Amino acid sequence: MSSADPRVGIVMGSKSDWPVVEAARKILDDFGVGSEVRILSAHRTPAQACEWASGARDRGIEVLIGAAGGAAHLPGVVAAHTTLPVIGVPIANGPLSGFDSLLAIVQMPKGIPVATVGVGRADNAALLALQIMATADEAIRAKLADYKVEMARKVGDTDRELQAELS
Amino acid sequence: MSSADPRVGIVMGSKSDWPVVEAARKILDDFGVGSEVRILSAHRTPAQACEWASGARDRGIEVLIGAAGGAAHLPGVVAAHTTLPVIGVPIANGPLSGFDSLLAIVQMPKGIPVATVGVGRADNAALLALQIMATADEAIRAKLADYKVEMARKVGDTDRELQAELS
Amino acid sequence: MSSADPRVGIVMGSKSDWPVVEAARKILDDFGVGSEVRILSAHRTPAQACEWASGARDRGIEVLIGAAGGAAHLPGVVAAHTTLPVIGVPIANGPLSGFDSLLAIVQMPKGIPVATVGVGRADNAALLALQIMATADEAIRAKLADYKVEMARKVGDTDRELQAELS
Amino acid sequence: MSSADPRVGIVMGSKSDWPVVEAARKILDDFGVGSEVRILSAHRTPAQACEWASGARDRGIEVLIGAAGGAAHLPGVVAAHTTLPVIGVPIANGPLSGFDSLLAIVQMPKGIPVATVGVGRADNAALLALQIMATADEAIRAKLADYKVEMARKVGDTDRELQAELS
Amino acid sequence: MSSADPRVGIVMGSKSDWPVVEAARKILDDFGVGSEVRILSAHRTPAQACEWASGARDRGIEVLIGAAGGAAHLPGVVAAHTTLPVIGVPIANGPLSGFDSLLAIVQMPKGIPVATVGVGRADNAALLALQIMATADEAIRAKLADYKVEMARKVGDTDRELQAELS
Amino acid sequence: MSSADPRVGIVMGSKSDWPVVEAARKILDDFGVGSEVRILSAHRTPAQACEWASGARDRGIEVLIGAAGGAAHLPGVVAAHTTLPVIGVPIANGPLSGFDSLLAIVQMPKGIPVATVGVGRADNAALLALQIMATADEAIRAKLADYKVEMARKVGDTDRELQAELS
Amino acid sequence: MSSADPRVGIVMGSKSDWPVVEAARKILDDFGVGSEVRILSAHRTPAQACEWASGARDRGIEVLIGAAGGAAHLPGVVAAHTTLPVIGVPIANGPLSGFDSLLAIVQMPKGIPVATVGVGRADNAALLALQIMATADEAIRAKLADYKVEMARKVGDTDRELQAELS
Amino acid sequence: MSSADPRVGIVMGSKSDWPVVEAARKILDDFGVGSEVRILSAHRTPAQACEWASGARDRGIEVLIGAAGGAAHLPGVVAAHTTLPVIGVPIANGPLSGFDSLLAIVQMPKGIPVATVGVGRADNAALLALQIMATADEAIRAKLADYKVEMARKVGDTDRELQAELS
Repeated sequence: MSSADPRVGIVMGSKSDWPVVEAARKILDDFGVGSEVRILSAHRTPAQACEWASGARDRGIEVLIGAAGGAAHLPGVVAAHTTLPVIGVPIANGPLSGFDSLLAIVQMPKGIPVATVGVGRADNAALLALQIMATADEAIRAKLADYKVEMARKVGDTDRELQAELS
Repeated sequence: MSSADPRVGIVMGSKSDWPVVEAARKILDDFGVGSEVRILSAHRTPAQACEWASGARDRGIEVLIGAAGGAAHLPGVVAAHTTLPVIGVPIANGPLSGFDSLLAIVQMPKGIPVATVGVGRADNAALLALQIMATADEAIRAKLADYKVEMARKVGDTDRELQAELS
Repeated sequence: MSSADPRVGIVMGSKSDWPVVEAARKILDDFGVGSEVRILSAHRTPAQACEWASGARDRGIEVLIGAAGGAAHLPGVVAAHTTLPVIGVPIANGPLSGFDSLLAIVQMPKGIPVATVGVGRADNAALLALQIMATADEAIRAKLADYKVEMARKVGDTDRELQAELS
Repeated sequence: MSSADPRVGIVMGSKSDWPVVEAARKILDDFGVGSEVRILSAHRTPAQACEWASGARDRGIEVLIGAAGGAAHLPGVVAAHTTLPVIGVPIANGPLSGFDSLLAIVQMPKGIPVATVGVGRADNAALLALQIMATADEAIRAKLADYKVEMARKVGDTDRELQAELS
Repeated sequence: MSSADPRVGIVMGSKSDWPVVEAARKILDDFGVGSEVRILSAHRTPAQACEWASGARDRGIEVLIGAAGGAAHLPGVVAAHTTLPVIGVPIANGPLSGFDSLLAIVQMPKGIPVATVGVGRADNAALLALQIMATADEAIRAKLADYKVEMARKVGDTDRELQAELS
Repeated sequence: MSSADPRVGIVMGSKSDWPVVEAARKILDDFGVGSEVRILSAHRTPAQACEWASGARDRGIEVLIGAAGGAAHLPGVVAAHTTLPVIGVPIANGPLSGFDSLLAIVQMPKGIPVATVGVGRADNAALLALQIMATADEAIRAKLADYKVEMARKVGDTDRELQAELS
Repeated sequence: MSSADPRVGIVMGSKSDWPVVEAARKILDDFGVGSEVRILSAHRTPAQACEWASGARDRGIEVLIGAAGGAAHLPGVVAAHTTLPVIGVPIANGPLSGFDSLLAIVQMPKGIPVATVGVGRADNAALLALQIMATADEAIRAKLADYKVEMARKVGDTDRELQAELS
Repeated sequence: MSSADPRVGIVMGSKSDWPVVEAARKILDDFGVGSEVRILSAHRTPAQACEWASGARDRGIEVLIGAAGGAAHLPGVVAAHTTLPVIGVPIANGPLSGFDSLLAIVQMPKGIPVATVGVGRADNAALLALQIMATADEAIRAKLADYKVEMARKVGDTDRELQAELS
């Protein structure tokens, strides 16, 4: 259902990234924003990845999210094939703890930016996508404002709980 | 003149960041997009930085760009005060070569993303800002498409030049 | 009870930091020094964090301790709003093992120092706070001297135990 | 003259650290706070370093600053011999760019904190020392408040200058 | 002339990589092995890069060498489009000193290896290409054996020179 | 059986590397390519390691694979004794997570390349060996092409499964 | 018993290092070389650590081994108080995986070397101590030669076992 | 002349290491200890390097020093061929600033230690060699004691000079 009328395209290089990436889908669902989720590999299915990226705008997609680990080329390869904003999520799936995927995503050359979020932070990728859409969508903007208020409220709640515990 | 009708807000923590940050302003100028450029410090003028960020949307700003070095808090502090998309540019201005500013910008906690670009890549910050604006602005979208074609053309030119040199 | 008459302010960005931060509170309690403990986020509740820091001296607080992980801005943001000494505790709560929080805390720009202790060393943050207060408080000074003697005694005990085991 | 009545003890492991460390002395001078400056090595003159640290409080010293590069043990060795607060300044004087001195200073074990500032930030070490003294010295407190205002003013000046340049 | 009958394909992402990459061309020339040299970008001219890689075997190319800096995707993208062996040369062209390009090249996922050589070691890329061709080419094999003897001879020469200097 | 008529030589420094290295043997078996597998240490049995490498070509070996952890010298030592292509597999077997073995393998000096694959990627070492052999072996070439198709098919399968799950 | 007539002094900063350090004692025992083992802290019991180091030669100690984690100053502090060779063993006991203790031990300034072995390699510290003693002790020299033969034999055994398993 | 009757063997992989390594020779000369200095490569002249190491004890050599950069295998390869103590000097000669050579030297496997000194610290390698020889050579021992006194004196001199400058 959330995939009916997708406005955000989410792609990951491997099924094993899904437990991390799922958080992005969940937040978009919560905001009522449809998304398409694909497993496409920059290296194993490059043609499909390129085609998916190239056609995204025509499918009505407004923002792309790419998640990958190791020599994480997927977000950059996607960015090479579109002028839509592309958000990169480094995945920490091996011995180098995500230092490899972070550098392989963020250090893009002049001309092809990838908007990189923290290692494993698919949730923030979704929120960034929403902020981008909110530049032209007042409904999302209002929900983001509510989300920010709600975050603050939750911090306040844990703060008060801790005060209570400690007194 | 380019600051008449600014749609992008650019902030840096120190005048010494300007030689890097200038590239962002230049690209926005080339695309005909107005920008405001400020020197505001997350630590030395926190109130002004927060106020600048909080009021950005009402001033008509659509995207924010923050550049900082070292314990680079400025983009995150700006992001805390707005739901506009915030782009972070790590500056390499000390002995740790930008590893510090990169990690201090990209590793934001859940809820407050900063769209991080490569170390020193203010140019890509501007292009990302344009991609974001282009989700709702066909004129910029067309210019971005042209820019991409032009980039490819330039690569092709250097390729042909090198062929010529080598043959 | 220890929070009656607090002289040290302890703040962390998230409830999940408490298991580490608790060690600071415990040591302050052991020294009979009251502390206030708050969960305030540099990014989710920035206004409260700033207000807490700004008002600390007037509440009788003498030293501030801030603990945070990832792009750990909290100690720096607190330091921006006070001239009280601020101690930063990097938390290792993600794939980058605290390299991110250490650099994001210690590499503060000229003018706004954060007294950084080791990754996860909330205990040392409390001891440093006590050393700071001891510059003008002879009772704490005497207790710190005792603490130092006691530490040495404990090392001596484990040394003798090991000798006994090995002989 | 500034060394008449020293309240801050500054120590470095080698004369070659002086061009960095000098900034600390300068700031203390500007605040009218006397300091003693010594070259003592944790490894080449350990007895003198220990004696200097042990006797500091009795000489009227309130805060100690230790600067060192490489396997930078000096601040920790000093901290082992006093209950005064000890501030550590990592110096970047070799191929590893200060990563070595930063880790060798900040990662102190439980019981013996060193208040670490950024790599090469002797200026911040002095300001931290002043913040510490200000917990019991209203005159310094007032000057620190002025210093903060002045810093903000300077940021504002460079901000306005840049506006002027760009308009 | 060396490009008549190319057996090795060399590609780099930017003209600025040429001063490093030139060493590979030079060694291949010295071995009498033709090479084609192209400037093609994984991100700016992705279609051409893919096409170049896909068609390489049919053009008679036996080994590919890709050099790139930063988020160095070019060797991996090339490898995705061929079953020829692909050698990757990390270029150190920015503040992160090649840590970024090394990790972005070597950490390829299962299925798509890139034979990575040291940062900036285009010379070794050429020698590796020659070793690969030598598995089926006795003439190159003999030359590689000679090269190895010559290398040893040169080390011996400098050894003897130093002995002479020191005696 | 797969060791009858070995064309690839696999060597590791310790039996403890076998669980990682086994993947290389398995892939070679699947491609019907014989391999010899040895435990030889660059440091504990240097003469045997050198002899094994020196004699490899005469035994009909076409490619060598060396796997090692820590100060991983084995691939380089092997490369010093042959002009066959040598593939290095960094093993992550200690506290430094493979950063040590990666750098100790990849950063070979001019003249003696080691074709380095990702940390723990023995599977890719085997595929790279097959790509090398395929430069002169059409049967392997065909199988590699099939392997690539099969990889793409599997990604497509997981992609479709995820679509199904999500719809 | 092995401590009767100790020739090697082993010191660690904390009882928690013993599970690693024990390997050094064990090897020395196996070689019939007496050792004294102490828990002494560079920071918590500095006077005892210095005294232990200063008096070592007079107690008949020939080599010192110091093990420590974090800001690992113990080996360097020991080295400052003796002209005996001092071997340092970095312990990986915290979030930074031993990068901190390695750098804090190995990067000693001119004049005061510490012979550093790998992270956690107390076994190698003992072997290095034996190699040092063997420069003047033929009995140890002979045992070291045997040890080397035995190591080679063991590698050969595991090699043959693996051959058997695989055939 | 200092090479008449060499007791220390110094080896480096390349003539380009000599400006660093020279400091070791100089110190040994100053102590009146003969040394042999060789350029031998673990990879380009492996047989000579092994032979040099194997025969060292019989030539009267008591300690070996090996210096190398990048994937610095030389000290480890030397250590594999002798039971003499081997000291390793990491050279910082490329973009990775010596992180590569440090890890490639220090992280040796169980059984084959290399006594590693700081990056570029050939001077300390010589001093460590002297400390090792001093375990059985009273004349060197006395000179080392004098050297230590002299070092302390020099620190004292610079200390006094700085006092004078500042007063």
